[in-house]
Amino acid sequence: MEKTLNVAVLGAGTVGSQVIRLIEEKNGELAARSGAKLRISAVVVRDVHAPRDYDVPREVLTTDAETAIDEADIVIELIGGIEPAFTFVKRALSNGATVVTGNKALLAQHGPELYELTATNDTDLYYEAAVAGAVPIVYGLRESLAGDTVNRVVGIVNGTTNFILDQMHTTGASYEEALKEAQDLGFAEADPSADVDGLDAAAKCALMASLAFHSRVAMDDVAVEGITSITSKDMEEAARTGFAIKLLAVAERRTDDAGTDGIGVRVHPTLVPLTHPLATVSGAFNAVVLECESAGRLMFYGQGAGGAPTASAVLGDVVAGASHRVHGGHAPRESRYAQLPILDPGTARTRYQMRLRVEDRAGVLSEVSGIFARHGVSILAVTQHQIDRHREAEIVLSTHTTREADLEAVADALGKSNAVLSVESVLRVEGDG
Amino acid sequence: MEKTLNVAVLGAGTVGSQVIRLIEEKNGELAARSGAKLRISAVVVRDVHAPRDYDVPREVLTTDAETAIDEADIVIELIGGIEPAFTFVKRALSNGATVVTGNKALLAQHGPELYELTATNDTDLYYEAAVAGAVPIVYGLRESLAGDTVNRVVGIVNGTTNFILDQMHTTGASYEEALKEAQDLGFAEADPSADVDGLDAAAKCALMASLAFHSRVAMDDVAVEGITSITSKDMEEAARTGFAIKLLAVAERRTDDAGTDGIGVRVHPTLVPLTHPLATVSGAFNAVVLECESAGRLMFYGQGAGGAPTASAVLGDVVAGASHRVHGGHAPRESRYAQLPILDPGTARTRYQMRLRVEDRAGVLSEVSGIFARHGVSILAVTQHQIDRHREAEIVLSTHTTREADLEAVADALGKSNAVLSVESVLRVEGDG
Repeated sequence: MEKTLNVAVLGAGTVGSQVIRLIEEKNGELAARSGAKLRISAVVVRDVHAPRDYDVPREVLTTDAETAIDEADIVIELIGGIEPAFTFVKRALSNGATVVTGNKALLAQHGPELYELTATNDTDLYYEAAVAGAVPIVYGLRESLAGDTVNRVVGIVNGTTNFILDQMHTTGASYEEALKEAQDLGFAEADPSADVDGLDAAAKCALMASLAFHSRVAMDDVAVEGITSITSKDMEEAARTGFAIKLLAVAERRTDDAGTDGIGVRVHPTLVPLTHPLATVSGAFNAVVLECESAGRLMFYGQGAGGAPTASAVLGDVVAGASHRVHGGHAPRESRYAQLPILDPGTARTRYQMRLRVEDRAGVLSEVSGIFARHGVSILAVTQHQIDRHREAEIVLSTHTTREADLEAVADALGKSNAVLSVESVLRVEGDG
Repeated sequence: MEKTLNVAVLGAGTVGSQVIRLIEEKNGELAARSGAKLRISAVVVRDVHAPRDYDVPREVLTTDAETAIDEADIVIELIGGIEPAFTFVKRALSNGATVVTGNKALLAQHGPELYELTATNDTDLYYEAAVAGAVPIVYGLRESLAGDTVNRVVGIVNGTTNFILDQMHTTGASYEEALKEAQDLGFAEADPSADVDGLDAAAKCALMASLAFHSRVAMDDVAVEGITSITSKDMEEAARTGFAIKLLAVAERRTDDAGTDGIGVRVHPTLVPLTHPLATVSGAFNAVVLECESAGRLMFYGQGAGGAPTASAVLGDVVAGASHRVHGGHAPRESRYAQLPILDPGTARTRYQMRLRVEDRAGVLSEVSGIFARHGVSILAVTQHQIDRHREAEIVLSTHTTREADLEAVADALGKSNAVLSVESVLRVEGDG
């Protein structure tokens, strides 16, 4: 006789209602794939009388999360945020239930404690939906690349900021205009700070780094810069020199100045050559490039957010979890055997492009380039053009690969120089070509 | 105490020697990930005295495949071809051993019998390396999209033909010149027919369709056209009209003329808009686009061949297989519950571009367009230009979406028309835009 598994869904918002609808509609297919019939035993909501766009028997709706969790074999957590999600997930894992979540904040903050609970209670925690929506990057890192060594993960993992930057790039809109449009279209929240300040990308960066490098990486380890200071002028200058500006999450194995092997994790707006695959990722799409020792360069691309794509990721996890409950075995355990240290971001090495407003007089370029030379930063290319009406000029400099700390020292010294009116922008450059 | 699993490697060519080297070098990491120490118990070769570029104890080398298989927990089959690979894989599965293979021909021909053996002997068969090398498309279809419905799979899955077409596109080389270069660089075999005739892509197309649609699809079900008739002139005309020519494997759910739901599977050179992600896949790279009901459009991109990338795929499977042997459970069973029929390729619907050489006289265009109209094929765009010195003209026509059988009837009728000197090329068009 086919086994029936009780599924409790915590939170029935955009993603949750799609998950419920799909479990109801595709019950036969999901049973054929997992070996178990999935029965929605509870949908935990704040108000059981609120209007809803999914169809479950009235008695399944409840505000009593504890009972719902205690009666479930599989708990799908889609509340988001730290509490009460953390308490609920701990309760479910302690019961030995399988947990599927899309809660990157919870995992980035309390992941290790939760992974510990899966081991002690011999159960599984799945979170494909927590990173890049429908893009199966957690599967890729956790399962299919289990026989390879990942050296670098570079991704566009926040659809809101990618939409805003893409709008600025293609329409010439200002940051404020593009943000407004993203908000009007539902791609950005009324309070967009978690997205535009890079915090959402940082949480995902920490999760990808943990998986890729088998080490503990927390959200606080990630050096973060958001996109709020990117101007139309930056976009224009990027396009003119053959680049798009993208908010990239970068996680890499590297060594620091003392030769220590470790991990660098950072999120920042970045110049990406227009010929690079990541430059072509438009709108609210996500993409992640993995650089692996044997596999070489792999790219995963798809929709990073939205009810249906995220529900697809959740259901893939539900089928895997259900299958393990029926047939035995479990998801790969979070292995932190490598335990590489997190390195000082100042020791990271990248290329830079810097834009300066300077006095339009003889000797300025020599003064500016002297500052670079004194800090050991090698200049790759420089262009200067006059801005007539102000008796000012603009200098755009790009550097060879350089230490972040050295570049910061250059920027400081330039800020203090009499010849320099202002440092207009400092952007990192990623990608060959 | 940590469990030790015996691993027999059948065939130590380009991929096999990399697999052996990586198992030896990364034994600690692989053990941490799988929960078992992997011990290479046998390497089955034709000649134990032949020179080799991997380091195993002399006594591990053997020509006795049967004994090697009978003593192994995990058998890695990298011999290729049908026999003796088929006999060896059956023996291993019947023993209850886990089998990892990259042999698409074997799977496309004898898959169902082998999947049956995994079920009756409670073991697993893995074959990530059989489709698109390091690109984890088997994982994607088999595991991460288990909660979604895949409607369409479109991929560049043969690196040799992609290299040849890419060379023709970028350098203006003829097919023969580009093939010669591919052979010189080791991207094409001395006898390139399996690649250039589309048979390798057809085997992969059948495997992807089986996984995506939970139905049995054999290689013979795939309608195949190779790239040998593609000319520099086709390439030039494609580029002029904003397209690249790619050999695509297409597997799709569709309905036929009678409204029967089923599967279409085909491999053919195709015009792809230069703005489409697949058009940017260059050299020997592979990429697969999945169109899914909930997840929307996903793309996987990476190296489709070569020793190291293929070894990465093999080792990912070895870790999964080892983990299941240690912790229980198994890979998702091949589920053929949908059993959709394979539809007549004549009922497929795509857009076409056709290039004709015609007499340069009044009334020809009207005659040509009349033939399209009589067969109910709607023309989207047409351009005509003179080829002065021959008193000939060339007509390039593109159609709206049309039935393949109708288009064939048009091509036949055009061939018989007095106005038409020759039908120079007929190419399908895929991708929006």
